Amino acid sequence: MTEQQQDQTGATREGGVSRRAVIGWAGAGVALGAAAVGTVAAATRDSGEQHEAALKAVPEVPFYGEHQAGIATPVQDRLHFAAFDVSTTSRDALVRVLKEWTKAAAVMTGGREVGSGATGLAEAPPDDTGEALGLPPSRLTLTIGFGPTLFEKDGVDRFGLKAKRPAGLIDLPPFPHDSLDPARSGGDLCVQACADDPQVAVHAIRNLARIGMGVVNVRWSQLGFGKTSSTTPDAQTPRNLMGFKDGTRNIAGTDDRTLGEHVWAAPGDGPEWMTGGSYLVARRIRMHIETWDRTPLKEQEDIFGRNKREGAPFGKQKEHDAPDLAAMPKDAHVRLAHPDSNGGAQLLRRGFSFTDGTDGLGRLEAGLFFLAYQRDTRKGFVTVQRRLAANDALNEYIQHVGSAHFACPPGVRKPGEWWGQSLFG
Amino acid sequence: MTEQQQDQTGATREGGVSRRAVIGWAGAGVALGAAAVGTVAAATRDSGEQHEAALKAVPEVPFYGEHQAGIATPVQDRLHFAAFDVSTTSRDALVRVLKEWTKAAAVMTGGREVGSGATGLAEAPPDDTGEALGLPPSRLTLTIGFGPTLFEKDGVDRFGLKAKRPAGLIDLPPFPHDSLDPARSGGDLCVQACADDPQVAVHAIRNLARIGMGVVNVRWSQLGFGKTSSTTPDAQTPRNLMGFKDGTRNIAGTDDRTLGEHVWAAPGDGPEWMTGGSYLVARRIRMHIETWDRTPLKEQEDIFGRNKREGAPFGKQKEHDAPDLAAMPKDAHVRLAHPDSNGGAQLLRRGFSFTDGTDGLGRLEAGLFFLAYQRDTRKGFVTVQRRLAANDALNEYIQHVGSAHFACPPGVRKPGEWWGQSLFG
Repeated sequence: MTEQQQDQTGATREGGVSRRAVIGWAGAGVALGAAAVGTVAAATRDSGEQHEAALKAVPEVPFYGEHQAGIATPVQDRLHFAAFDVSTTSRDALVRVLKEWTKAAAVMTGGREVGSGATGLAEAPPDDTGEALGLPPSRLTLTIGFGPTLFEKDGVDRFGLKAKRPAGLIDLPPFPHDSLDPARSGGDLCVQACADDPQVAVHAIRNLARIGMGVVNVRWSQLGFGKTSSTTPDAQTPRNLMGFKDGTRNIAGTDDRTLGEHVWAAPGDGPEWMTGGSYLVARRIRMHIETWDRTPLKEQEDIFGRNKREGAPFGKQKEHDAPDLAAMPKDAHVRLAHPDSNGGAQLLRRGFSFTDGTDGLGRLEAGLFFLAYQRDTRKGFVTVQRRLAANDALNEYIQHVGSAHFACPPGVRKPGEWWGQSLFG
Repeated sequence: MTEQQQDQTGATREGGVSRRAVIGWAGAGVALGAAAVGTVAAATRDSGEQHEAALKAVPEVPFYGEHQAGIATPVQDRLHFAAFDVSTTSRDALVRVLKEWTKAAAVMTGGREVGSGATGLAEAPPDDTGEALGLPPSRLTLTIGFGPTLFEKDGVDRFGLKAKRPAGLIDLPPFPHDSLDPARSGGDLCVQACADDPQVAVHAIRNLARIGMGVVNVRWSQLGFGKTSSTTPDAQTPRNLMGFKDGTRNIAGTDDRTLGEHVWAAPGDGPEWMTGGSYLVARRIRMHIETWDRTPLKEQEDIFGRNKREGAPFGKQKEHDAPDLAAMPKDAHVRLAHPDSNGGAQLLRRGFSFTDGTDGLGRLEAGLFFLAYQRDTRKGFVTVQRRLAANDALNEYIQHVGSAHFACPPGVRKPGEWWGQSLFG
């Protein structure tokens, strides 16, 4: 939060109340920039406090902009993703929720609490559920998307949006080996909450769900505990639960040319309301990690086409070296997923590892919650996944168990605008 | 990791291989103390990297000691908890796993990888599953416990341990309103993995499960995304998913007198092998948060006996002010749980918030995974929970859906000793 946004009383431009100001952390810790991290750390006493102090000094991610935050933004550590179904037939009610959501999103991504804060009435439920009080913004981003069923469901034009459905917002085709659970697939709307602190991400989804009560219901949700991709050039690529670096050579969030070519919808691509937006494919990919863990190293590396330790493609030394596809087995994952194998198709990936306890057989219910943004899903995910589903050596160890597709509109440019304004407005 | 533990090649005393040294982060970043956080932050470029750099500088938690780490240790941010069943009848096989687990635990809590690392054979599965390669120790602690069924199950003395079962390791009695799922209850063994990075905690449990294959199976597991208690005096108490500070006035990890009185088993308390150990009760407590979120603030505060914003007990100003129980409603949670209402009983709590997606009705499957350590569960948890289950106003909004009880042995004092040595040795 900048001082511009907050006066001495803790009130803010957006009407929210600073979570930190209210509980008495105002002062030295509030408006710290990067250079002050060391000072904060030195003033604290144990390693846990050091850690907390460092997190507090990280600035928020701006909510307003040409594109939605949470796409090209450097990938945060944790995810809470929710798909919603709209339970009303009233377009007005839906628009009202979208407007309220936008206000709440601007407030929460700034590390402030929803609603009137300290002035809330004792006789009414609190505006904010409260579990993030005192936590910093934690780089929270909230990214909204609209699913195919919002535009038409069972042949019904529910909200007068049918004519505005982008041709690119297809019903995803079935792929070989898919084993999709309808209860973990689809959705009229989605919100992707990413933050470095999962409590902040969970708080955000919960408060949006609460604001939407009676109009939208959570259809399914997914917690991701560790990012598996980076959009920061030259950063260490995180590892997936197979122990491999798989998000290497992702599109960089700073590479405007590639973002323009492969991620952002451009004028003429489809309906005007999506210009500056992006299409999101979400796939819940279960990994059979117990089987994988019994697989020899050489076989694991052949399957990826990459060595495990360094992450270097076959025949190369370093993770970020350009891969020599011919040096890999024909069914290697990296080879099949590479743009050169897919007519130049590139996806911006920001997937997360998940583990949801244990299944009935004592196996970890774990895997990759794959999230990919693209300018045109037909040229992007569908092209790549057709090839992978047919040939990828990895298929023996994974299964796609959930699937969804969303059109994520452009960013909210300034206070007063709202999520979906270009579509509904 | 200290320099004492690691030589120039990355090899360590324990035989593990430094996760960071191997992948080329050796040098400036490896042996940093607290004061260097600022330097690291200044050398990096974006807020995500700042954050990562700060985490890397936090030192590991020592594995060896009189008591197990992970009990009085300042509570880490994330949890992966696993209960295991022993599938063999062979005591020798079980002891072999416990010895291997101990070695692996010492290595992983030091931020090193399991097994032979770079010298692994291409023809064999890797010793370490690899997804934590490159991650710092993240204050990982691993804490083992032994459940009642390890000593006797269906009348069978499975491993010749029946005579050594502590009288205090009772089968927990049923409490009013319990709705326990057997698939989320019990277990012959447990391992609590706490770390500031969930990937590190998940990696640890997974690698222990893998080492134990054929001897122990995961019975159930639970991921906790946010701590709800602090064992650090004067630290901000984290909030639970009801938005309240509930771990206030927890036993401090530095308060040796209270730890001795209420947490550590003492000579004469029970069998000698438990001296220095502690009894752990784990309860999965589902919160009906949608209902809670519709409850007026005043009612919420009456239920806890605490104001929501500050966390101060009724009639007081500050969170840590000593509560005036008479100022609270008779059925207030804080009043009923207070030592003065329970003959002085005190628990060391280190619970975590969880959310495991959405239930069939679109409600967040969320709540508190309650973990409490104590010298004698009969005087501790059972005493307090009898009172709470009978009278707590909070019962309308929560339900206990999982339950387990474990005897956590004393610490491993030095390399060569092993988990459970005092019991099996």
